[in-house]
Amino acid sequence: MIDLTLIGIGTGNPQHLTLQAINALNTVDLILIPNKGAGKDDLAGLRREICDQVIQNRDVKITEFDLPTRDPKTADYRQRVDDWHDAIARVWSDEIHRHLPDGGKVGFLVWGDPSLYDSTMRIADRLQRQQQVEMTVIPGITSIQALTASHAIPVNEIGAPFTITTGRQLRDKGWPDSADTLVIMLDGECSFQSIDATGVKIWWSAYAGMKEEILISGPLAEVSDQIIETRARARTDHGWIMDIYLLRR
Amino acid sequence: MIDLTLIGIGTGNPQHLTLQAINALNTVDLILIPNKGAGKDDLAGLRREICDQVIQNRDVKITEFDLPTRDPKTADYRQRVDDWHDAIARVWSDEIHRHLPDGGKVGFLVWGDPSLYDSTMRIADRLQRQQQVEMTVIPGITSIQALTASHAIPVNEIGAPFTITTGRQLRDKGWPDSADTLVIMLDGECSFQSIDATGVKIWWSAYAGMKEEILISGPLAEVSDQIIETRARARTDHGWIMDIYLLRR
Repeated sequence: MIDLTLIGIGTGNPQHLTLQAINALNTVDLILIPNKGAGKDDLAGLRREICDQVIQNRDVKITEFDLPTRDPKTADYRQRVDDWHDAIARVWSDEIHRHLPDGGKVGFLVWGDPSLYDSTMRIADRLQRQQQVEMTVIPGITSIQALTASHAIPVNEIGAPFTITTGRQLRDKGWPDSADTLVIMLDGECSFQSIDATGVKIWWSAYAGMKEEILISGPLAEVSDQIIETRARARTDHGWIMDIYLLRR
Repeated sequence: MIDLTLIGIGTGNPQHLTLQAINALNTVDLILIPNKGAGKDDLAGLRREICDQVIQNRDVKITEFDLPTRDPKTADYRQRVDDWHDAIARVWSDEIHRHLPDGGKVGFLVWGDPSLYDSTMRIADRLQRQQQVEMTVIPGITSIQALTASHAIPVNEIGAPFTITTGRQLRDKGWPDSADTLVIMLDGECSFQSIDATGVKIWWSAYAGMKEEILISGPLAEVSDQIIETRARARTDHGWIMDIYLLRR
């Protein structure tokens, strides 16, 4: 019997950790950490730093594992992701049986919140299909919240809806009719360039909530170029970037 | 000079507090707590309990104030809310000048996250218009995250958008075209009854994340009546209710 706990740890600020997350990190038998997260060495180091800071229980074993890579030969995107999740689930299963042959509690540190644009829960579902696995989810501060907190803005207008979507959706489908506020995630291409900027304001953040955080806001038409340049420079400086933004019309 | 810190404290589980929130609570001069939150005595008590549990700094002064009520004679909803926020801002201002005549740091405990369907930031904006006020926002776990964590479900489908909206919007405008996943907040009327239940699944939670939490999920057509009955009973038992749900088609 395996207890899997997916622990939301916030967006890279160790101060984002909740008491619930700290408690969970101290009561598992094993913590599995991928030793490379899409080449983001800063983030891998940060995971270890978080463990060092808050885990006082010496019985918690922390181990790293090699994260499989996606197979670029698989043409279909969804199939490529599915295969990749299958491969990760196999590695998890092997690691768990090696370290906990009689079962036990296993924890995973998840950036942000395990429910929001994250694959950890989908990989855990694969394990559940093969063996008896109990899953617990600990919520964490998301980059949406880090974005709005740093800009000190509400995400919604009074009583109004808002839509969370991706850069790809914004490029392919334009601004949805349903809401005058959009939060754009997973955008590697500054997709705000694809929409009519008239009357649109943007609040942009890179490395939201982290000490490297960069904030830019203003009318989209006025700050669009500044965001594109700042993003390119920061990406070069750090070797990686994570950014998110809110658009309001 | 006044430093206002709006501190997200999660959804009523003291374990939702982040290290950042605990640090903020221990470094302000004054914490202002409304002594009634829409008749929710449990929640008022819980705020005090949270302060007792995590504030170690004896120099932090905690004081309660009478929250003004909305004037039912004002017919227009938006005007009524605006007037009410003005009245609260005046009370804040009076309390701050009484306790901190020379300025200082003031903290407010906000349920969930100060950016999400909460008026505290809008009231703080009013103070900023009248005097020099610096505003800091500390993000907190929202009821959306408590909902998805307790049901152990992702909020989004892979790469797909989702919309956060209110019960009133769902009743008045139906299911928006833009997303196959909706999260419904601020719904006092089980507004899921207003939509076609065919092919729709619901994940419902009352008192999300709290020890009183109640979870129901399933095909909307099958569990709709059960949710309506459970909600009515829980509301009678507790004297108040907070609920939230996710719909997926």
